[in-house]
Amino acid sequence: MSVLSGRAGTVAPSGAGTHGDANALLAEIEGIGLAPDGGGYTRPVFSPAELRLRSWFTAHAEARGLAVETDRNGIIWAWWDVAGGPTATATARRDAIVTGSHLDSVPGGGNFDGPLGVVSALAAVDLLRDRGVRPVRPLAVAVFPEEEGSRFGIACLGSRLLAGAVAPERVHALVDDSGSTFDEVAAGAGFDASGIGPDPDRLGDISAFVELHVEQGRGLVDLDQPVALAGAIIAHGRWHLRIEGRGDHAGATRMADRSDPVIVASEAIRSVRQRALAVDDARGTVGRIKVVPGGTNVIASAVDLWIDVRHRDVERVRRIVEQVVADTRRAAEAEDCTLAVAEQSFSPTVSFDPELRDRMQAVLPGAPVLDTGAGHDAGVLAASIPTGMLFVRNPSGASHTPAESAEPADVAAGVEALARVLEHLVTR
Amino acid sequence: MSVLSGRAGTVAPSGAGTHGDANALLAEIEGIGLAPDGGGYTRPVFSPAELRLRSWFTAHAEARGLAVETDRNGIIWAWWDVAGGPTATATARRDAIVTGSHLDSVPGGGNFDGPLGVVSALAAVDLLRDRGVRPVRPLAVAVFPEEEGSRFGIACLGSRLLAGAVAPERVHALVDDSGSTFDEVAAGAGFDASGIGPDPDRLGDISAFVELHVEQGRGLVDLDQPVALAGAIIAHGRWHLRIEGRGDHAGATRMADRSDPVIVASEAIRSVRQRALAVDDARGTVGRIKVVPGGTNVIASAVDLWIDVRHRDVERVRRIVEQVVADTRRAAEAEDCTLAVAEQSFSPTVSFDPELRDRMQAVLPGAPVLDTGAGHDAGVLAASIPTGMLFVRNPSGASHTPAESAEPADVAAGVEALARVLEHLVTR
Repeated sequence: MSVLSGRAGTVAPSGAGTHGDANALLAEIEGIGLAPDGGGYTRPVFSPAELRLRSWFTAHAEARGLAVETDRNGIIWAWWDVAGGPTATATARRDAIVTGSHLDSVPGGGNFDGPLGVVSALAAVDLLRDRGVRPVRPLAVAVFPEEEGSRFGIACLGSRLLAGAVAPERVHALVDDSGSTFDEVAAGAGFDASGIGPDPDRLGDISAFVELHVEQGRGLVDLDQPVALAGAIIAHGRWHLRIEGRGDHAGATRMADRSDPVIVASEAIRSVRQRALAVDDARGTVGRIKVVPGGTNVIASAVDLWIDVRHRDVERVRRIVEQVVADTRRAAEAEDCTLAVAEQSFSPTVSFDPELRDRMQAVLPGAPVLDTGAGHDAGVLAASIPTGMLFVRNPSGASHTPAESAEPADVAAGVEALARVLEHLVTR
Repeated sequence: MSVLSGRAGTVAPSGAGTHGDANALLAEIEGIGLAPDGGGYTRPVFSPAELRLRSWFTAHAEARGLAVETDRNGIIWAWWDVAGGPTATATARRDAIVTGSHLDSVPGGGNFDGPLGVVSALAAVDLLRDRGVRPVRPLAVAVFPEEEGSRFGIACLGSRLLAGAVAPERVHALVDDSGSTFDEVAAGAGFDASGIGPDPDRLGDISAFVELHVEQGRGLVDLDQPVALAGAIIAHGRWHLRIEGRGDHAGATRMADRSDPVIVASEAIRSVRQRALAVDDARGTVGRIKVVPGGTNVIASAVDLWIDVRHRDVERVRRIVEQVVADTRRAAEAEDCTLAVAEQSFSPTVSFDPELRDRMQAVLPGAPVLDTGAGHDAGVLAASIPTGMLFVRNPSGASHTPAESAEPADVAAGVEALARVLEHLVTR
């Protein structure tokens, strides 16, 4: 039993009805964290909704006889006891194949981004067993916390901790919007965060990680295919801009006397759009803004604004951010405001392991190879171990919105593809 | 005892130490609703902080032998029993002089905007009694709810209800940021909102209303004077813009495929600044923005944005708003977004009663007359009854920020000026 289990309400697995059926598994969680007004799913890490999904996953894994543990970074691992022995021992985990994804969501997201990879992993295990596959190496299903970074600002936080790609000291100091630290929020969820940090032994036991994910674009729609392999994740990062001006009365303060950070924020937004548009295939977004104090009749004293920039070429990402910061700094000077910029995360372009991809293509002939603009735990882990990804067709092409979708037949095709890949990897 | 009293923690009046001393009264409440980090006072209507101030006011009024009641619009009235009889009877209130202000604040405001008028009223009553003034007509100190409109969006909500300047049906339907209705929030504070609405009988009993307020500009600093009379409140209003686009993934969505309401919001902000700058002495502000859903790696699906526009000339206010809406609509069309605009409130220019001002000037020779860009309950009531205002010097000139200030000597000068005006009005 995971230390995280049982803290929030548990969704009992419905048993045989979900055996090998990722669609049935998804149906079980379709109400959890869902806004009543069509606002989509909001399942931030360690929230009641995410904890319910973790408990639900643990129950399903245990119902399948998998040995479940939560490591010191909050990652859940469910081990297939392939040797018939105690898989909780370190020896039995050597040279493991791992699959899985995440259960947290952005605010107002869909039900597939994250959970699809988790339920497909469970269903694929069912298929392998039905087919009598006898693994010669261990297989685990992993669930990573805070993949979206929607609560603490750093995407793929669990895999970054595992891989040593973020310092534990920095994570201890992270706060969410309510001002609670990572450690406080984790403790509230029953998780002791004192031991977070790099885990090279655990990582060293993994011979390959394969993540299945709903596609976050229309590549498969255009190609009329249900499943693709990932080629690369384009470079991406997040920067926090803090603009400070002088709070004052919206009616009593002459326009000439103002030092209004909202004006500077509007220039930052324009700059992100224009600088990204000027570079082929770049993406630049402002999706989060906080005006302080936020009164209609109050000239703001400060604005917090986050920018997200991506491109296949790392240097172009850097260049766009430099330009945006320079534009914003000019606007801040003109408005007598100050500007502080902090890089929250930066991930260079990740090309997934070519040898692993060749092996995956061998069992999935005809599956196209697609690049993606979205980050993933598989991208973070690619720096340490061989990783690969499978994408499942998304008819709307939309992501991080309730409009995200996947057809049941494509979900089943994804499970089949993952099962074939895993069978190949665990039996050789 | 007010129906609102006793619901939140009560600050006991410290008795004789505050007699006639507005500075001592202010000192008693200086910690209530104060952010620990220098973020100023946040005392939205019916919040624990505002309810504590209401209880504290009631206790001080009762300690002075004033008869306290809360009317069906949530306005507290503390009556000086001038006839030595039961002032709770309607007859005894006829032809009354009323002074007072409000105790709610904007988010992150100062301690003077509102409370200064309330404590000065209590202190002025003390001075009148010390001087043996024998009123020939009733005197009341009034406390108005939701003057700032920071919780439900409509400024001067209490006085607007009293004067019939807002429909009760509209107020019943108002919701705060947490989605609670006005009636629900009122009920939670122990106030039954079922009876809100115009109260012409009560209004008809008032022969004059005088509100003292900290100045929200540097007029008195420039004139080197402690106290001024109000000339006019320039026309002002609030409009809510709802911009809807298409939520999507910040990394996976090509720039050309976006319908991003944040881009449109940035154009609205620019337009407000430029259109206001183009008109002499106009003020235009965006101080409140809500990005939905508000994730760093999420293209927003919607933005709520509020604009505040003011000018002495009503038509110019209308014109600026029309221009901003037209500019924003063009930007929305270019981005394939929709735009909906709602007027939340609009107050034409208010010129305070000239006859009352003449009488005030007669007892305050040399006090300058200043216009203001800020709205007040006195401005709302001016449409129904003779009203006047006194302003107390604010060294910083700042307002709706913790930088708002008033020197103790100027606070005392304000109380003295108010006492002279009230003495004149209640004895003639």
